[in-house]
Amino acid sequence: MEFNITIFLDLLGTFAFAISGLRIASGKKIDWFGAYIIALVTAIGGGTTRDLLMDVRPFWMENSMYFITTGVAFVSAILFKDKLFRWGSTLFMFDAIGLGMFTVVGISKSLAMGLPMWVCIVMGTITGSLGGVFRDVLLNKVPLLLTRDIYALASLFGGLVYFLFYKLGFSSNITESMTAITVIIARLIAVKFHLQLPLLKPINENSNKN
Amino acid sequence: MEFNITIFLDLLGTFAFAISGLRIASGKKIDWFGAYIIALVTAIGGGTTRDLLMDVRPFWMENSMYFITTGVAFVSAILFKDKLFRWGSTLFMFDAIGLGMFTVVGISKSLAMGLPMWVCIVMGTITGSLGGVFRDVLLNKVPLLLTRDIYALASLFGGLVYFLFYKLGFSSNITESMTAITVIIARLIAVKFHLQLPLLKPINENSNKN
Amino acid sequence: MEFNITIFLDLLGTFAFAISGLRIASGKKIDWFGAYIIALVTAIGGGTTRDLLMDVRPFWMENSMYFITTGVAFVSAILFKDKLFRWGSTLFMFDAIGLGMFTVVGISKSLAMGLPMWVCIVMGTITGSLGGVFRDVLLNKVPLLLTRDIYALASLFGGLVYFLFYKLGFSSNITESMTAITVIIARLIAVKFHLQLPLLKPINENSNKN
Repeated sequence: MEFNITIFLDLLGTFAFAISGLRIASGKKIDWFGAYIIALVTAIGGGTTRDLLMDVRPFWMENSMYFITTGVAFVSAILFKDKLFRWGSTLFMFDAIGLGMFTVVGISKSLAMGLPMWVCIVMGTITGSLGGVFRDVLLNKVPLLLTRDIYALASLFGGLVYFLFYKLGFSSNITESMTAITVIIARLIAVKFHLQLPLLKPINENSNKN
Repeated sequence: MEFNITIFLDLLGTFAFAISGLRIASGKKIDWFGAYIIALVTAIGGGTTRDLLMDVRPFWMENSMYFITTGVAFVSAILFKDKLFRWGSTLFMFDAIGLGMFTVVGISKSLAMGLPMWVCIVMGTITGSLGGVFRDVLLNKVPLLLTRDIYALASLFGGLVYFLFYKLGFSSNITESMTAITVIIARLIAVKFHLQLPLLKPINENSNKN
Repeated sequence: MEFNITIFLDLLGTFAFAISGLRIASGKKIDWFGAYIIALVTAIGGGTTRDLLMDVRPFWMENSMYFITTGVAFVSAILFKDKLFRWGSTLFMFDAIGLGMFTVVGISKSLAMGLPMWVCIVMGTITGSLGGVFRDVLLNKVPLLLTRDIYALASLFGGLVYFLFYKLGFSSNITESMTAITVIIARLIAVKFHLQLPLLKPINENSNKN
């Protein structure tokens, strides 16, 4: 039963990220096939990179549900795009849930592989946010991750909470739930209060030699 | 003897993809070294990604012929560029052959690794079309794959044909030939009749929150 | 003792590449977090790709010093940006040192894995120059590597020197030092005399079919 909830939340995250990819791809002369690819890359790009770095077979090869869920997101976007429009804030909520869930999945999987704590936190952040980076690179834009909002930082912060609870001896259920909730709340607060990091000012205008 | 034909067709695909990379790189302030890199990435990018995903050593490390063939393509493009120009449709034919060959190589290699059928089909498409995606990302363009033409879809369709023949018990020779021919013909038909998928229309113009 | 010098030079290369990433990211609407990521990708992107291709766990997972050194570079860039500006040529020197060091690291690591000579040279070049390619792709520019200067070629040339000394039976100390010095000098000469390769001229203007 608990297993099913994990799967359900993982696929909810997949769906949310796929929809987020489709929204950003829409109106940009991307055809239906390209749109599905963008949705897929947004949803599975982070976890695939994590698995390549950890030298294990990418998770989606073991279970076709990730491709199917992305397909469901794609069909939903084609059929219900006006409704999806009205669901703007719901979708944002989905994306935050996706970030929270994927952060937890990334940390737990790395921890089970015996990686050091700080590497696990990095893996959580990679799992949660690298899909969006691939999406933006494919759409020929500077990744949102680099330019604005607190996004990957919410995931990193969740990672710290994970290991706080872990070290304090809480059960993995509580640890994982608290991590996901932290990421989601950090993301909501960041967007609601327009929290942003400072920009990196020009260091060196004249000597662009290299 | 049969082995030699496989190698020959594989290298023909490499040559075709390298030339395709060079054509798209030409006239874009890319220097000779950069042009060779673009040609190489176009030719080996798909198969390298496939091998990384399957957790095996990239194919080109075992055999320097892929780098050498790309070099031959590069020198040909420098020496005979006017002739290559007149060969426009021949080159297109080469690219279609490359797509067909690489699709077959990708599927066969994945099948030999014991991957499920749908993963093999995905691997065939990755092998055939991801090199062109890397090429376009390096040239700072939205990948052609995402925007127009039936390209990866021809490869996917070939994958379905592969498993149809495979399940029906045909020999691997016939199965592989029919797959390559299907991909090539699908590609020719798509270009001849300007078959295109619909574009993904704007879902959501106002709430670009995330 | 010698071990410490290797580590020191490796981290010096990391610092140099991180600063190079920060300079190119500055003034481009990248926030602090994004700037750190750009610096990190510039510094570890090449070695990470090398390790993925060789099917070993990425080097930075074993030692947090690479992330920490990048952090030091980031803080330095924020605190001392005017001084860094005056250090223009010093920084260029650092980047050349980084390229030399990373080329050596890449070749030595590949050789220890038993890869053929030409693959080792390719791995040295990937280690030295792919981080800068990722940096440019993330900043949505055509990689400098493809467009101008002798950069990866200096690394390749160093690789040839490596195997010349190796085959002649010199100690690994001398071989590695001579390789690094060759790369650095080749890079200095290329920049001082504005050595550039020819550009790839348009092959084919009219038939951009594919």
